[in-house]
Amino acid sequence: MLEAEKTYEHVLVERDGPVARVTMNRPKKRNALSLDHMLELIDCFESVAQAREASVVVLRGEGPAFCAGHDLSEMVGRDPDFYRHVFDVCCRLMQTIQGIPQPVIAQVHGVATAAGCQLAATCDLVVAAEEARFATPGVRIGLFCSTPMVALSRAVGQKKSMEMLLTGDFISAEEAKAEGLVNRVVAAKDLEAEARTLADKIAEASPLVVGVGKQAFYRQLEMPTEQAYGYTREVMSFNATFADAQEGMCAFLEKRKPEWQNR
Amino acid sequence: MLEAEKTYEHVLVERDGPVARVTMNRPKKRNALSLDHMLELIDCFESVAQAREASVVVLRGEGPAFCAGHDLSEMVGRDPDFYRHVFDVCCRLMQTIQGIPQPVIAQVHGVATAAGCQLAATCDLVVAAEEARFATPGVRIGLFCSTPMVALSRAVGQKKSMEMLLTGDFISAEEAKAEGLVNRVVAAKDLEAEARTLADKIAEASPLVVGVGKQAFYRQLEMPTEQAYGYTREVMSFNATFADAQEGMCAFLEKRKPEWQNR
Amino acid sequence: MLEAEKTYEHVLVERDGPVARVTMNRPKKRNALSLDHMLELIDCFESVAQAREASVVVLRGEGPAFCAGHDLSEMVGRDPDFYRHVFDVCCRLMQTIQGIPQPVIAQVHGVATAAGCQLAATCDLVVAAEEARFATPGVRIGLFCSTPMVALSRAVGQKKSMEMLLTGDFISAEEAKAEGLVNRVVAAKDLEAEARTLADKIAEASPLVVGVGKQAFYRQLEMPTEQAYGYTREVMSFNATFADAQEGMCAFLEKRKPEWQNR
Repeated sequence: MLEAEKTYEHVLVERDGPVARVTMNRPKKRNALSLDHMLELIDCFESVAQAREASVVVLRGEGPAFCAGHDLSEMVGRDPDFYRHVFDVCCRLMQTIQGIPQPVIAQVHGVATAAGCQLAATCDLVVAAEEARFATPGVRIGLFCSTPMVALSRAVGQKKSMEMLLTGDFISAEEAKAEGLVNRVVAAKDLEAEARTLADKIAEASPLVVGVGKQAFYRQLEMPTEQAYGYTREVMSFNATFADAQEGMCAFLEKRKPEWQNR
Repeated sequence: MLEAEKTYEHVLVERDGPVARVTMNRPKKRNALSLDHMLELIDCFESVAQAREASVVVLRGEGPAFCAGHDLSEMVGRDPDFYRHVFDVCCRLMQTIQGIPQPVIAQVHGVATAAGCQLAATCDLVVAAEEARFATPGVRIGLFCSTPMVALSRAVGQKKSMEMLLTGDFISAEEAKAEGLVNRVVAAKDLEAEARTLADKIAEASPLVVGVGKQAFYRQLEMPTEQAYGYTREVMSFNATFADAQEGMCAFLEKRKPEWQNR
Repeated sequence: MLEAEKTYEHVLVERDGPVARVTMNRPKKRNALSLDHMLELIDCFESVAQAREASVVVLRGEGPAFCAGHDLSEMVGRDPDFYRHVFDVCCRLMQTIQGIPQPVIAQVHGVATAAGCQLAATCDLVVAAEEARFATPGVRIGLFCSTPMVALSRAVGQKKSMEMLLTGDFISAEEAKAEGLVNRVVAAKDLEAEARTLADKIAEASPLVVGVGKQAFYRQLEMPTEQAYGYTREVMSFNATFADAQEGMCAFLEKRKPEWQNR
């Protein structure tokens, strides 16, 4: 497995069957997204995408926090070029996660703040422990969470997003679920198993088909309805010609389990 | 009534006062959307729109299911042109429902899956029985619900839509209400009456005004806010000049019931 | 303070520390938005924006209602030019509220209908009393709430927005919170204090930073994700160079309270 051959300073990647587990591994820094950390995460997601050995990715954090956002210790007193570079890399990381064919599940056990909250909001699905908490508190330190708001306001309603951005207050995992930021909330002891169960369920499907669907989802969301139908009509017509679609439909009609070619 | 003069193989249409009731009538096929079925539904909705005798439409399904999506028995082993035609007709059906001036209420008593879930999500309003269930399970048979996602992701939040599309799991009527897919959930025995009460309430208004409002709703949704205000300002100024608006405002000021001209 | 020097016929404005309190003061008319009333509100919000002495605005209504929408007594029997002018001024009022740098909190104690519901939906945040109720009932008087739907459908889901617009029915404060229209619901006796607490919390932040964030929020919402990231990356890079951002990050690292320059 390509991604397993790589070793990183801040990121661990392991594969277990169809699931790649990516761990942010800066526990003492609460997995803060230093420039190096973000560049490693981008490389890691791109390697997983290219290797195509894993069908689903689970993203988690080592230590007490999921991710505390940018690493402020490298953010003070820098020149404008540095800031543009940091935020450019951060945006690239988010777009890489939504751009790879494999679904990415955030497994959030603790605090996810600022760019860490954005990271969770960017993953395709989010499973959270009851103790997890989410906030975009940049406003409190004079640096409004303007890039995090892109992901936040596309998952959560306008009024709640604005409240989180203007107050910086935490919301609980349960509130995050009610607001659309989180898919499932479970006890901390069940979190890993829940993320794995969800990953395994998705991994039962044809990875080729899942990848086509994930890409189409984000593209059609940004189109007016008529254009979205024009686009998805082509995607679905093409998908219908896949061997996996023909096999899947036949298996359904014959009431048997499908055998995917594109594994 | 024009629409009542028509008879279809797979669709029943009846009018009761201001309400047209359209029934998908392929109970043994769980009201699957074969090509012929979809073409009949389009013709039926267009006839109702043209006749202008009904002010509201209720869409329901005969038999155990509301609608099980495309008819897989005609989908296996076809050429690309067939698939494009099927998905083109399906998209046209959805856009016809949102394009006619009358509000369409989905009365969902049972399972609504894939294009059947899309059909419910496309109707302007959805009333569901407690037993109703919704899913987009195409991914399980190798054919990702790419056209259904257009309607689903415009009614339901990003994370929940993605979960339904990636897992294919059912959600209950109550969950569908919490997620924004369904307006009202009632006991099965009260379903028809609830849909009818809602239809009658809407039918009390001026059909001309309702038609203008429905059209403006979907158009402005796709515009940036400034453009949406420029557009709706014109729509509402025009609406204010209608005899029904003048009558409605006068009746309100005089504390009496309005008498609509545009019935 | 510039805004305090101004007196209006229909609007009261007072400043208390960092909070400007704007009161719609036509209690006998249920604070209906006559042309003059709207023009005064626009002037008032623009003055608050220009004076920059208040960091947050609270908008409230005197008397039994928050705001009953347009003033129908001046709407009957007018020519098309008048209607265009009224709706143009109304749209300008809404865009002024979202366009000023200070966050605007609606403090809704009673009924908010039609353009009054739109006014609440347009404010950045909404705090409501348990007795508050929201509706877009224009359809009942032949004048569909087409401009209100712009604000409503950007805060509330598609199905619920459509139901409110087609039926004209009220929703309670609790339902409005569940649907995303309201941030917080409290007992009537606690309403003013709750709005003030929220305003004071926001006023602790750098007003310059808050203004940059509020503007970026509405702009990025209307962009495709890639463009939104390109835009917010520039906004956040610029923000990082502000003295208040440097001070805020240092204060955080040094575990002390920040001192803002841009007060």
